[in-house]
Amino acid sequence: MDAETVSKAFVEHYYTTFDANRGSLGSLYQETSMLTFEGQQIQGSQNIVAKLNSLPFQQCKHTITTVDCQPSGPAGGMLVFVSGSLQLAGEQHALKFSQMFHLMPAQNTFYVLNDIFRLNYA
Amino acid sequence: MDAETVSKAFVEHYYTTFDANRGSLGSLYQETSMLTFEGQQIQGSQNIVAKLNSLPFQQCKHTITTVDCQPSGPAGGMLVFVSGSLQLAGEQHALKFSQMFHLMPAQNTFYVLNDIFRLNYA
Repeated sequence: MDAETVSKAFVEHYYTTFDANRGSLGSLYQETSMLTFEGQQIQGSQNIVAKLNSLPFQQCKHTITTVDCQPSGPAGGMLVFVSGSLQLAGEQHALKFSQMFHLMPAQNTFYVLNDIFRLNYA
Repeated sequence: MDAETVSKAFVEHYYTTFDANRGSLGSLYQETSMLTFEGQQIQGSQNIVAKLNSLPFQQCKHTITTVDCQPSGPAGGMLVFVSGSLQLAGEQHALKFSQMFHLMPAQNTFYVLNDIFRLNYA
């Protein structure tokens, strides 16, 4: 699979899983993984899942607008840059967001080494 | 300097230079550098500068809203994620944008290996 196919498959998997059961996203991260969520820095799979589970909403639906990807260097990593919107249950307006992932190869698959999320307040 | 200090200094330098004379940004890129600009992929310092010079506006002013950074792995790279707005001369409303840079160490400084830019249409 080329980089674009991997990126799009990852993005589809990530947001579908997030919207269905975000507590199960932990398997995408490792102990060295980092998440910066609206400026808050979190490290490690367990802490990242705890943060996602603590978000003050239950149901949500991500809609993806753009996915861009680039190889990140000789180690075989891949940068994935996403823009989209996030509809929270019971809210009238969707929130726009941008998010980037740095995927690193590991045993025939990829894990998320870096994850940075920001809402783009309109 | 720690990662956050480097990131903020880079961001300040990049956008100040962009707004003053974007044709001089070429020294921040190398031949392996990639820019994805609104979905268009460009590689190499010269091609990247040609793209920036070809943008259909002369004067502009970037205002930075957020800067997030993370180390990108054992090679000493750094991911910098920026959100902000871009005011074009003669336009009433500023455009919101998100941009990510992957900085790699080189001879006591950093160069931009990866650069992805997207406008966030409100």
